Amino acid sequence: MARVSQEHLDARRRQILDGAALCFARNGFHATSMQDVLKEVDLSAGAVYRYFGGKDELISAIVTEVLDTVRDIYERAALESPPPTPDVLIPRTLARMRELRPATLDGGEWMFPRLMIQVWTETTRNPELAAALGEGYQKVRASWVRIVEGYQDAGLMPRDTDADAMARAMIAVVQGFAAQIALFGGPLEETVGEGLRAMMTVRRPGTDG
Amino acid sequence: MARVSQEHLDARRRQILDGAALCFARNGFHATSMQDVLKEVDLSAGAVYRYFGGKDELISAIVTEVLDTVRDIYERAALESPPPTPDVLIPRTLARMRELRPATLDGGEWMFPRLMIQVWTETTRNPELAAALGEGYQKVRASWVRIVEGYQDAGLMPRDTDADAMARAMIAVVQGFAAQIALFGGPLEETVGEGLRAMMTVRRPGTDG
Repeated sequence: MARVSQEHLDARRRQILDGAALCFARNGFHATSMQDVLKEVDLSAGAVYRYFGGKDELISAIVTEVLDTVRDIYERAALESPPPTPDVLIPRTLARMRELRPATLDGGEWMFPRLMIQVWTETTRNPELAAALGEGYQKVRASWVRIVEGYQDAGLMPRDTDADAMARAMIAVVQGFAAQIALFGGPLEETVGEGLRAMMTVRRPGTDG
Repeated sequence: MARVSQEHLDARRRQILDGAALCFARNGFHATSMQDVLKEVDLSAGAVYRYFGGKDELISAIVTEVLDTVRDIYERAALESPPPTPDVLIPRTLARMRELRPATLDGGEWMFPRLMIQVWTETTRNPELAAALGEGYQKVRASWVRIVEGYQDAGLMPRDTDADAMARAMIAVVQGFAAQIALFGGPLEETVGEGLRAMMTVRRPGTDG
C-alpha cells in the first residue's frame, strides 16, 4: 500500500517536472509563470505546490534530475569492458535521454536541447541554479573520467593521456551538439556518431598511424 | 582624407559593438536597454543611432562580425599545409578571439562566452537573429570542411571520413567549451588542447593503432 502510494507520488512529481520543462523550453524561464505550469500539467495550485515551492525549485529539480540520468547512463557505460567509444556512446546517450522522457517531446520536436540553453542563460544570474548545475557537472565529469580510464585499461588509448581534460572535451561535445539541435534543428544522432568517428581518426603530423 | 574618415567611422562602429556586447553579456539581451548601451560607450543617442537602429540591429551585427572573424581564422588555417590539427587550432582560435577584441574583457573576465549563450537563448525567439546566426554557422561549417579536407590531403586522416559531420563536431566542441567557460569559468586553453589531443588517440575496438 505504501509502495503504490510512493509510485503515485513519483508519477505526479514526474508529470509536474516534465510539464514545467516543456514550458521553460518553449518560452524561457522568465516568461513562464507558475500559472502556465499549472495549465500545462492540468493540476490545481495545491497539488503542484505540495511538491515544489515555485519556479526556482522546479528548475533546480529538473536540472538535478537530468544530470543524474545522464550520469547514470555514463556510470553504466564505465562498467562495460571496454566502455563504448565516444562515437557510439554519445549518440546512444542522446537517444536514451529522448526515450526516457517521452513527455518532453512537443509536436515531435525534442525540447530538452532548448531547455538546456534556457537553463544556461538563467544560470548566469541564479546562484542556486548555478550550484545545482555545477554539482551535476562535476559528477558527470567524474563519470567520464572513469569511462576514459576504461579506454586506457582496455588499451584503446595511451595511459599518459589526460583523462579529466578528455572528460571536459566529451561534455563540451554533448553541450555543443545540444546547442546545434536547439538552434538549427540538427544534427541527427547518426551524424553525431560520424563526426566523432572522423575526429578519432585524425593523427598529429609526425606521429604514427 | 576619405580613408581616415572611414577608419574613424569603423573605430566608432567597433566601440559601439564592443560596448553593446559587454552589456548583453552581463545582463542579457532583454534586460539591456539602448540607454544602457549609450552609457557604456559614452556616446550620444544621435552618434549611436547613426550606426544602428536599435538593439536588434546591434545583436545581429555583433553575431555576424564574430562569426566572420572566426571564419577568417579557419579560412587561413585551411590554407596551411597541413592545417593545424584540432588540438592546436581550437585553443589557438579561442586565444585569438580574445586578443582581437580586448574591449570585451570585463574586469579580466572574457565576456564572449557569456554573450554566446545569451545570443542562443535570444535566437530561439528572434527570427532575424536566427537567420544571421544560421548564415554565419553555415559559413563556419564550410570552412571547417575545407580544413578537414586539408587533413585528408595531408594523409592525417582517411579519405572516407565524413568531412561535414566532423565539421559539425568541431563546431560543437567550441560551442560546448564556450558554454563551460561561461558557466564554470573554465577550462583554460591548455586543457582544451589536452582534451582534444586525448580524444584523437581513442581507437575503436578491433581497429589498428
